[in-house]
Amino acid sequence: MIKLYNYGPSGNGYKVALLLNQLGLTFETVEVDANHGGTRTPEFLAINPAGKIPVVVLTNGVAIAESNAILWYFAERTAHLPEGRLRHARVLQWMFFEQYSHEPYIAVARNWVAHTGLDERRRRELPEKHERGLAALGVMERRLSDHPFLVADRYTIADIALFAYTHVAHEGGFDMSRFPAIRAWIDRVREQPGHVALGHG
Amino acid sequence: MIKLYNYGPSGNGYKVALLLNQLGLTFETVEVDANHGGTRTPEFLAINPAGKIPVVVLTNGVAIAESNAILWYFAERTAHLPEGRLRHARVLQWMFFEQYSHEPYIAVARNWVAHTGLDERRRRELPEKHERGLAALGVMERRLSDHPFLVADRYTIADIALFAYTHVAHEGGFDMSRFPAIRAWIDRVREQPGHVALGHG
Repeated sequence: MIKLYNYGPSGNGYKVALLLNQLGLTFETVEVDANHGGTRTPEFLAINPAGKIPVVVLTNGVAIAESNAILWYFAERTAHLPEGRLRHARVLQWMFFEQYSHEPYIAVARNWVAHTGLDERRRRELPEKHERGLAALGVMERRLSDHPFLVADRYTIADIALFAYTHVAHEGGFDMSRFPAIRAWIDRVREQPGHVALGHG
Repeated sequence: MIKLYNYGPSGNGYKVALLLNQLGLTFETVEVDANHGGTRTPEFLAINPAGKIPVVVLTNGVAIAESNAILWYFAERTAHLPEGRLRHARVLQWMFFEQYSHEPYIAVARNWVAHTGLDERRRRELPEKHERGLAALGVMERRLSDHPFLVADRYTIADIALFAYTHVAHEGGFDMSRFPAIRAWIDRVREQPGHVALGHG
C-alpha cells in the first residue's frame, strides 16, 4: 500500500492526502511530528535526505518528496492535470508561485501564530510575513476575480496546491474579508467530489 | 520572436537563457532592473502580476512566469526532460527543492553579498542563510557523490535549475571546497553542448 509520511497540521501533507482521496487511491498515513524533530531522525532522513514531510513511499519502495512533485506524479494522465504544454506550464507556474511566494509567508505565519508560538524574533518578522502573504493573496484574487479556478477554468492540482494554506490563512492572522473572489473559490474547491478537510485526510 | 524579460545577474533568468540556447531557440532579451523597481512598474505587472523576472512572452503574445515552469514548457518532449511519470516527479522534486530550500538561501546571500550590499539587518540574517544554504548543498552533494547528474544519470532541466545559483554560490560566501561532488558536477554541466555562461546568455 502507498505510505504517506505526514504531519497532521501540515498543508503540504494535506495536499497529497486530498488528491489521493479524490483519485480513490488507498494509502496508509505515517504520522511524523515535524515540529518536534521527527523529520531529523536517521530513519526519516534515509527516506528523505532533505528532512521534510510530506513523502510518499510507493508499493515498490520508491520514495517521492516535495508536495507539488507528488501531486504531479499522481495527477499525470488524470482529470486533475489538464493536457497540453501550455496548461502544464500554467499549473507549474501556480505551484512554483505557491512554494516561493505564498507558502513561506502564509504557511509560516500560520505555523507561528496557531501552532508553535511567537517569540521576540518572530514578532519582529511577522509584519513582513503578513505583507508578503497579502501580496500573494492579491495575485490569486486578481486571477480568481474572473476565472472559476486557477488554470483551464476547471479544478486541477494547481487549485489543490494553493487551497492547502489559503483556506487556513486566517489562522495566521490574514484578513480574508479583503478577498471575496478567493472566498468564493474556496467554496468551489470544497464542493469538488471526494473533498476531505484538513486533518481528516 | 520569443522575448525573455530578464535581469542580468539573475540565476533564475539565466536558467531560461541557458536552456533556450541549448535548444537552439532564437530569443530577444528585454533587460529589467529587478534590484531597482523594474519589476514593479504597471507595464511589467501587466506581463507578470507576481512582479518577478524571468518571464517569457511567446510569439503569440502568451506570457509564462516562474523560471522552472518556463524550463518545463520548453523542455517537454526534448532530451532535456526524460520521459516517464517517475522521472517527471524526480525532475520536479529537485526543482521544487531548488525554489524552496536552495534559492532563498544561496541566491539571496549572493544577491546581498555580491550585488545589493549588507545593512545591519542583513548582517544579522546572513548566518542563517549560510546555515540553510549549506544544508541544501549537503543534500546535493550526497546525491552527486554517486550519480553524474541529478536525475536519470543524464543532463536534464533539474541540473539547469540547480546549476544556476550553485555555480555562483561562492559569491555569497559559501565555501565550495567542502563539496567535491558538486564541483565535479559543475564541470560536467559546463561541458554540455551549447552551454553559455551566466551574463552571456
